[in-house]
Amino acid sequence: MRVAILGVGTVGNEVANVLLRNQKLISARSGMNITPVVGVVRDLNKKRDSKIPLTDDINSVIDRDDIDVYVELIGGIDGPYKVVSKILEKKKPVVTANKAMLAYHRNELEKLAGDTPFGYEASVAGGIPIIKALREGLSANHIQKIVGIMNGTSNYILTNMMQGGVKFDEALKKAQELGYAEADPTFDIGGFDTAHKLLILASLAYSVHAKPEDILIEGIEGITNEDIYFANEFEYAIKLLAIAKRREDKVELRVHPALIQKEKMIAKVDGVMNAVSVTGDAVGESLFYGAGAGGSATASAVISDLIDIAREVKNPMLGYKAPLEVLPLGLFKPNEIKTKYYLRLKVADEVGVLAKITNLMSQNNLSIDSFLQKPRIDKSLDFSTLYFTTHTCLEADMLRVVGLLESESFIKGRPFMIRIEE
Amino acid sequence: MRVAILGVGTVGNEVANVLLRNQKLISARSGMNITPVVGVVRDLNKKRDSKIPLTDDINSVIDRDDIDVYVELIGGIDGPYKVVSKILEKKKPVVTANKAMLAYHRNELEKLAGDTPFGYEASVAGGIPIIKALREGLSANHIQKIVGIMNGTSNYILTNMMQGGVKFDEALKKAQELGYAEADPTFDIGGFDTAHKLLILASLAYSVHAKPEDILIEGIEGITNEDIYFANEFEYAIKLLAIAKRREDKVELRVHPALIQKEKMIAKVDGVMNAVSVTGDAVGESLFYGAGAGGSATASAVISDLIDIAREVKNPMLGYKAPLEVLPLGLFKPNEIKTKYYLRLKVADEVGVLAKITNLMSQNNLSIDSFLQKPRIDKSLDFSTLYFTTHTCLEADMLRVVGLLESESFIKGRPFMIRIEE
Repeated sequence: MRVAILGVGTVGNEVANVLLRNQKLISARSGMNITPVVGVVRDLNKKRDSKIPLTDDINSVIDRDDIDVYVELIGGIDGPYKVVSKILEKKKPVVTANKAMLAYHRNELEKLAGDTPFGYEASVAGGIPIIKALREGLSANHIQKIVGIMNGTSNYILTNMMQGGVKFDEALKKAQELGYAEADPTFDIGGFDTAHKLLILASLAYSVHAKPEDILIEGIEGITNEDIYFANEFEYAIKLLAIAKRREDKVELRVHPALIQKEKMIAKVDGVMNAVSVTGDAVGESLFYGAGAGGSATASAVISDLIDIAREVKNPMLGYKAPLEVLPLGLFKPNEIKTKYYLRLKVADEVGVLAKITNLMSQNNLSIDSFLQKPRIDKSLDFSTLYFTTHTCLEADMLRVVGLLESESFIKGRPFMIRIEE
Repeated sequence: MRVAILGVGTVGNEVANVLLRNQKLISARSGMNITPVVGVVRDLNKKRDSKIPLTDDINSVIDRDDIDVYVELIGGIDGPYKVVSKILEKKKPVVTANKAMLAYHRNELEKLAGDTPFGYEASVAGGIPIIKALREGLSANHIQKIVGIMNGTSNYILTNMMQGGVKFDEALKKAQELGYAEADPTFDIGGFDTAHKLLILASLAYSVHAKPEDILIEGIEGITNEDIYFANEFEYAIKLLAIAKRREDKVELRVHPALIQKEKMIAKVDGVMNAVSVTGDAVGESLFYGAGAGGSATASAVISDLIDIAREVKNPMLGYKAPLEVLPLGLFKPNEIKTKYYLRLKVADEVGVLAKITNLMSQNNLSIDSFLQKPRIDKSLDFSTLYFTTHTCLEADMLRVVGLLESESFIKGRPFMIRIEE
């Protein structure tokens, strides 16, 4: 399957990179080789590190007979709409990450596509497979509600205001310095980017063909530290939410900052991360969390669409049957595990006990990361409790240390160990 | 597509109920009617509320020519293995939720199935579409790590110990009273249920054909309040985790209680909920959260497999093209939104201001849920800040109140409102 990439920026470049890097894996999973053969850019003179041939002549690429699938990553609304329409008219499959185009033209494009595959998993919430979840994973359900945090810039700013106590302007400036926000941040902090994504999800879940101008869109610009104060006081987080909510035969679609109880899972989504909560009549609430932007995460979604298309063309059963690894992997034995450990010991109050324990640990390759011993307040007890954590080590070493400690007379009861997961 | 349900307990009953209740929706999404035609039970005399005909003669059902797909919900290992083998030998598709059977026999069953659809989305983490995410949504990625909380009983007990300060025995007793734990809880709290699910995920991600006896399985029985104390002190949560981690060409598979930093998303999964975190080389970390058990959530996963099979049989394009709602829904206008509101007002320090505001609210159908006014410490300011939250009301009413307040002379600056999402 020969792929042309229209628009080779951060995402386009990563689509080519991941397709080439994971080629064997992807061909095992898709049933065919998926090869990026050409990329289209506006300015050929701009210096870039591309692993595929580039051209600035988009029409010649659209006219080529040897391209099987087009990936549209141009950006904008009407320009790419014309390009995608032209390709779909030729019955060639298209994969796009272009949420703005889809917010305005998804309905026409779906109709135009007809039986030609048209994938846009990457248009909503980057690497999170939320479109597939709605279409397939939760296909038994009437969707009652969708609530999403789908703009990393806004979530980064609000997280900083909540946790760092900084003001909106400072948080925005920091986001811009870190490259999380554009010089003109209106599109992100004004809620428009989030709205585009909401319209795509809502059209899938509810067949509502609304445009951005039909729905409530409010940004986070007005949030002050007084609101943050109130929110903290009353155990709320403030998040820029996209909400689609069904009431009888109509839906509310809205984008606005919202107070949401801190103990809710979606309130815990911090920084630039994205999450979408979907409530279905059978499944209840489920939540999908991950990187909402970034070249590599978005490429993951683009390529999942390419693999789906390859499977449909060649063998629809591959969804069930494809090997997920090219070679089966071996299994480490339990004592070959490497991790960090927490160790709780009850020890007699004798001189030199801690030195004996730490010597024994270091002789067996255990390195201590933290240690805690509380003053023994209850004098009726004849032991103290020691708490250790270690740096990463081998399970076999840890088990040996536990065994050796257990046989020491100054150890009371059994040493107890919990592994630490990073 | 005619479906036989083998084993009509809580899950089987809900499979039939949801198939019947959402029949129009499911037939639009799958391209055909999916009808539960018969259920098999062990004891026909047991009183139950089934909407489909029942029989206790499983062989007669397996021999019927008019059944297109079998749903296996019998439970156990070798009994259902024989049944499923027999059905797959006849080239009839099978959907199962039986993790114990799959932990031991998934490899033989996959081979036996060949090109016959064999779905088991429901076997891991109930309603969360994690198997589809691994096979399809994240298909571009080498899977580096899987970390899951996949046993609601254990997570409920640990959450209670962490948050409620109760001891293990008390937490277990409470879980048993609430029906979250069995009379003999070993299978859940000993980590065996989690291990079955881990083996299924690991065989998908890594083609590792391990059995439960090949991997490290430790339960949560040894956790004491001292460990909880340490964990809280050092900002860790304690969770029963399933871990699959790749190092070069081998994987670690292990199930054990683990300390995990509280700010990690998976550390925030509390109570009976499940979550699976998957780290891929392109997508980074993504997390899938939802109900890991319960008849209705598990039925959601079983039916998603049935819909996938229907699409494959009739029209693989339906994954992309199926309408998700039977009828397109209407769109509420922005001022028809119903929600709760937070309102911040700066008001002059005059007698009777609060009475005027609250009268105006009640005359316009706004009912106050909470109110906060801090003592004005900075005497140089000529206003106080009032914070209100309302009960659910109509956006139009709220906007009218804001407009009316804005025109009052005792209001300083603009009233500021944030919606509250429940």
